[in-house]
Amino acid sequence: MKTANLLGIALWLLLSGVAVAQSAEQAVRAADQAWLKVFAARDVQATTAACAEDASVLAQGFPIATGREAIGKLFGGFFQMPGFTMEWHPTRVEVAQSGELAYTSGTYSDSAQDASGKTVQDRGKYVTIWKKQKDGSWKVQLDIFNSDLPAAP
Amino acid sequence: MKTANLLGIALWLLLSGVAVAQSAEQAVRAADQAWLKVFAARDVQATTAACAEDASVLAQGFPIATGREAIGKLFGGFFQMPGFTMEWHPTRVEVAQSGELAYTSGTYSDSAQDASGKTVQDRGKYVTIWKKQKDGSWKVQLDIFNSDLPAAP
Repeated sequence: MKTANLLGIALWLLLSGVAVAQSAEQAVRAADQAWLKVFAARDVQATTAACAEDASVLAQGFPIATGREAIGKLFGGFFQMPGFTMEWHPTRVEVAQSGELAYTSGTYSDSAQDASGKTVQDRGKYVTIWKKQKDGSWKVQLDIFNSDLPAAP
Repeated sequence: MKTANLLGIALWLLLSGVAVAQSAEQAVRAADQAWLKVFAARDVQATTAACAEDASVLAQGFPIATGREAIGKLFGGFFQMPGFTMEWHPTRVEVAQSGELAYTSGTYSDSAQDASGKTVQDRGKYVTIWKKQKDGSWKVQLDIFNSDLPAAP
């Protein structure tokens, strides 16, 4: 019985560990999709509030933007493009065993109108690094993306 | 004396922890620069061997390349460009407290000759996610980069 109890406890600890890992992964995946929601809604304030204070966004075609003010200016520019739409889907989500560092990665597609009013579409991929904050929330530490489309000749 | 001993032990544990964290960060930084060395030498075999078997490279202008064969084809194409040079410098290196997941991020500059033999220069930034392997080595899990330069109109 003692052995059975110990095995039971070991199994319970193992499954608890798995449950915690799954729950952290789910929390990071939810943070990724919550960020998309405010991004697609062109909400500069909520989009930057999802970033850590010393976060950097590494956008294609722009220098590194570090800090919420710089990130707000960068994303604010995107949000002002007529007909701007954005969606992304994480295909890899991984949380460190220690539970404070994670990343999401996947594909995006966006569109906007150019100066002539023609809709221009883009698709690509991204990596976002997330850090767990003291209050238990996950915030963006680094975000980088690029297009699948070859550069114009 | 007992209190002093306990404080001493606590301090030793704290400093050991800091030393381990520094050492892991140094190991990841060294892996980042070792990867640059074989990349700049256009060594496809060593460049792909530095990647985990299920690694993905998210290169600007290309679809996601997953696995060493696809990554070798992608980088092999880069290495064949006449006059190809590459360097990068990590400005952020962070290792999870659990010591198995890390990232490096920084800036790059590269150059190559175009069809007319003219040298074309590019600069940008990157994020590489590293995972510690069973043998203690660090391998690339994800790598993504993009240019600072605006897309041609």
